[in-house]
Amino acid sequence: MKIKRIYKTRIHNIHKDNITFGNYYSDHMFYAECQNGKWINSVIKPFDNIILSPRSLVFHYGQAVFEGMKAFKDQDENVFLFRPKENFKRMNRSAQRLEMPIIPESIFMNGLERLIDIDRKWIPKNYGQSLYIRPFFIAVDGILSAKPANNYIFMIISTPVGSYYQHPLKIKIEEQYSRSASGGVGFAKAAGNYASSFYPTRLAKEEGFDQLLWTDSSTHTKIEESGTMNVCFLINNKLVTPKFNDNILKGITCTSILALAKKHGVEVQERDVSISEIIYGLKKGIVQEAFGCGTAVVINYFQMIGYQKHKFCLPKLPDKNRLSIWLKKQLLDIQHNLSDDPFDWRVNLKKF
Amino acid sequence: MKIKRIYKTRIHNIHKDNITFGNYYSDHMFYAECQNGKWINSVIKPFDNIILSPRSLVFHYGQAVFEGMKAFKDQDENVFLFRPKENFKRMNRSAQRLEMPIIPESIFMNGLERLIDIDRKWIPKNYGQSLYIRPFFIAVDGILSAKPANNYIFMIISTPVGSYYQHPLKIKIEEQYSRSASGGVGFAKAAGNYASSFYPTRLAKEEGFDQLLWTDSSTHTKIEESGTMNVCFLINNKLVTPKFNDNILKGITCTSILALAKKHGVEVQERDVSISEIIYGLKKGIVQEAFGCGTAVVINYFQMIGYQKHKFCLPKLPDKNRLSIWLKKQLLDIQHNLSDDPFDWRVNLKKF
Repeated sequence: MKIKRIYKTRIHNIHKDNITFGNYYSDHMFYAECQNGKWINSVIKPFDNIILSPRSLVFHYGQAVFEGMKAFKDQDENVFLFRPKENFKRMNRSAQRLEMPIIPESIFMNGLERLIDIDRKWIPKNYGQSLYIRPFFIAVDGILSAKPANNYIFMIISTPVGSYYQHPLKIKIEEQYSRSASGGVGFAKAAGNYASSFYPTRLAKEEGFDQLLWTDSSTHTKIEESGTMNVCFLINNKLVTPKFNDNILKGITCTSILALAKKHGVEVQERDVSISEIIYGLKKGIVQEAFGCGTAVVINYFQMIGYQKHKFCLPKLPDKNRLSIWLKKQLLDIQHNLSDDPFDWRVNLKKF
Repeated sequence: MKIKRIYKTRIHNIHKDNITFGNYYSDHMFYAECQNGKWINSVIKPFDNIILSPRSLVFHYGQAVFEGMKAFKDQDENVFLFRPKENFKRMNRSAQRLEMPIIPESIFMNGLERLIDIDRKWIPKNYGQSLYIRPFFIAVDGILSAKPANNYIFMIISTPVGSYYQHPLKIKIEEQYSRSASGGVGFAKAAGNYASSFYPTRLAKEEGFDQLLWTDSSTHTKIEESGTMNVCFLINNKLVTPKFNDNILKGITCTSILALAKKHGVEVQERDVSISEIIYGLKKGIVQEAFGCGTAVVINYFQMIGYQKHKFCLPKLPDKNRLSIWLKKQLLDIQHNLSDDPFDWRVNLKKF
């Protein structure tokens, strides 16, 4: 792998109090090409624009998948990636579903580790802060026939994220629009899944909600996921989440949260979750908490769920009584090397 | 609109006998930007690469829609666009569903007409040949938050297409994978719809089929469309096509074909078409023809339909007895200015 370093870091441009998601990009990026199945030109180079043919199939037929992951620092400036192999594996599951080449583990992991090592000063140090890492993979050639491209670019870019205040979410159960079809690509981190959610989400925002709670496209009776998050409910002290299927992105944060809950003695159920169960539970007060979880947000709890013309408020609990807040702290403690790592999730990034 | 002409045309590089779809690109392209809702920098310029930030949301969240249309020549070198306003309107329906800005009619139509006028020598003249035109619209900024971009690029490129031999298609009825969900974006020409079809299509090709016949994702009992084509069946002398809904792209070629059939006294039915009806009809010999239609392919008839483990052959008819072939000729005659244009579909491109 070639490494071309920047002449002068941009890190001093950062306003430390204004580290919002995507405001700043770290100095370098990883770039590799796959041409007719052969991986070439792996390089770490200064963050810069890319030059593409207008024929590139990513523009026309949407062959594009991505990942979201984070690097954390502990108090001694050690750097840790969180379960990076899970992102690597999921990226290839996504790529396979979109008929894209498989990314070799050596390309993904070496690119990731060398890039984050070179840009380690971009990882904020405070609790809850991190460097958000965005691997993405796009089709870049084509003759406009609707068939898979021959040539692809795989890149990794990163952006520091602060630990900003999260307001509890107002969520609308969506019964008209759909995020994904059974037999479709909902389980994949495919670019097209996101664009198609923007319009229904805007409609919900105009009604005063923050996000949608997607339901199955066939019957609109079963809850799937929320925005860019998986969703969990604490019902009668059991932590319930919709069973992962081909409509639902299997979140690494979510599976980690479930594992942590289980380890700490909370009963976890991955199963069908119907709207009627949740509405009944909200009315009866047995839905104690509801929250979304994902890499970017970690955990964000819901204060209200809207269904048809009704709005159901979740119980108002102090943070210290919330399982969601407690689980978030357990996860962040592991990520920041403040606690044991019983599941071997942390990867201590070596200095190259 | 600025116009920057090429110094030297590339048209002499064309091998006239090898005009395959997407092999050659005409000399110029149309380019315009929409920044924060304001359209700027409209220009026709030499076909060239574009420079984008790796943050561009088209790579990450798939805000990308496109159109497919054609320009034809008659024997006197007059140039005709075919129903261009329909493409303009559909492009904006697609853009709206993906929460992208609306493209003004002046930008779309002026860009299109000036571009095709400048590149009119790229339009092949023979019957069935044309210049395939690809308008596309992509999100190009972003801060990686999963929300609509502020800035977009709208472009038009074009490629000459020959009238090549089409082999009759072998089509597989797909019951496992889905193209789109009810409440999703199947009706839009959204880039992501195409990438998600490549993998199931490859599986079908490995079984010896050319294309899939998609069915509804909820029950997999109703036929929707085929590959990049709408689908029609001639059943008991009635021309039947699945009723357009939000899962199905409303093809301009298909609606034109239906209008032509109706005008010539063929009974046309737009309605639900179940697999069982088609299989029963194939067994009983009352499905006389089946074909796909779309801008690129015009009309391509099916020789065989596969369903589960069975393969059903369509009747072998001479071309002169095929409604599909007859309709194709009616359409091409209109497009090439060889017949009357009762529906006002042709737009005679003026010389600027």
